Amino acid sequence: MKKAVALLGGPVQLWPKDLKDRILVAKKNNDLIFASDRGSQFLLDMGIVPEVAIGDFDSLKKGELAQLEEYEIDFRYSHPEKDYTDSEQLFKVAFEEYNVDQLDIYGATGGRLDHFLLNIFTFSKSELKKYCEKIRYIDCQNIIMYILPGVKKFQAVAGYNYFAVGNLTAVDDLNISGAKYELKNYSSANPFVFSSNEFVGLQPIVVSLQSGEGIIIYSKDINRFYTAKKPRI
Amino acid sequence: MKKAVALLGGPVQLWPKDLKDRILVAKKNNDLIFASDRGSQFLLDMGIVPEVAIGDFDSLKKGELAQLEEYEIDFRYSHPEKDYTDSEQLFKVAFEEYNVDQLDIYGATGGRLDHFLLNIFTFSKSELKKYCEKIRYIDCQNIIMYILPGVKKFQAVAGYNYFAVGNLTAVDDLNISGAKYELKNYSSANPFVFSSNEFVGLQPIVVSLQSGEGIIIYSKDINRFYTAKKPRI
Repeated sequence: MKKAVALLGGPVQLWPKDLKDRILVAKKNNDLIFASDRGSQFLLDMGIVPEVAIGDFDSLKKGELAQLEEYEIDFRYSHPEKDYTDSEQLFKVAFEEYNVDQLDIYGATGGRLDHFLLNIFTFSKSELKKYCEKIRYIDCQNIIMYILPGVKKFQAVAGYNYFAVGNLTAVDDLNISGAKYELKNYSSANPFVFSSNEFVGLQPIVVSLQSGEGIIIYSKDINRFYTAKKPRI
Repeated sequence: MKKAVALLGGPVQLWPKDLKDRILVAKKNNDLIFASDRGSQFLLDMGIVPEVAIGDFDSLKKGELAQLEEYEIDFRYSHPEKDYTDSEQLFKVAFEEYNVDQLDIYGATGGRLDHFLLNIFTFSKSELKKYCEKIRYIDCQNIIMYILPGVKKFQAVAGYNYFAVGNLTAVDDLNISGAKYELKNYSSANPFVFSSNEFVGLQPIVVSLQSGEGIIIYSKDINRFYTAKKPRI
């Protein structure tokens, strides 16, 4: 079981608070560390050297790039006008060259929403779709996973109150059972998310679909994001 | 031309910095102000009373709800176990009862990504799809719009360097012309985003599609989101 962690270039404010510790633990367990573009600099700023760094590095200053090149890193340079995004190239290298079995991806959410939606949709592209069940996008309040046709059980994750199931592509016969809100035989040509579902005690939630691609989102509220500005009227 | 503004319950940190001024200007122009759930309280905290407030108000404390009820607001109470989300109900009321022609929606991005994706996908649902070209989702670094089949011209917006075009549903014959990167006759059953495109001088970008639903994202980078944590190695 080859595990890996990847850091992309999304907003620092949305990382899980213990991201550095998570990556240090991964490093200690000999998991691979991947970084794309600005993610490489973020890792170096944490004192962590990635094994693989991918990007055109156009968001780095020249001195920062020179600093990166001093380390033993498998560099992959991309070009600004290319067919694949940096993230797609990173995922292809991870799964096709490094044979990664499980990839946790940080820095993929928020900020520029063209980037975020592209990250989400990347695993709907035919080339990468087959790896979609091996990845998790993780930020400070969400864990995003994918499901392909079949039946899958999901366990509650401590601290995450909400569980959502959606479809990114046309979907046939999507079912949710064992949850607070059940869903039976849902089919649609349009994308949708059944949000704010919940686990019932320790019972797993079972999700199944006949065709298409599903998305699973564990989420929680974070109070500091909803502190309204004073003064009151 | 009946204009309106809506504030949903997403993270305060992602609002445009001048949101209060924007809403005050809207109010002065007699545009309608809509709020859903936590958005109502946010408005009151800014000293602004919405015309229409929709939600189950389950995120408000009892005192806050009582405070809201003192004002002349068209309240619509939803129920926690319902077929429509608060946002969907708000959009239906805006377009079907108040006959709004143009709706700018704030507080719809970030935070819980099941909510964000649901907001994005809400305008792919058959009932609301016909209104999708009348709305814009706006946060501090993105403006999201939709396009239905046909040809549309987009002008550069000051401060937004990037222009992205994507498809949320299956799409036929998507074209982008007049931009830095052109796209011809793109068809796909899977969602995708062509990100990081750019305007060329003052030339408009022309987007067309034969069938399906497109999404348009104007975006910019915000430096404070990419300040890496010290110390360096």
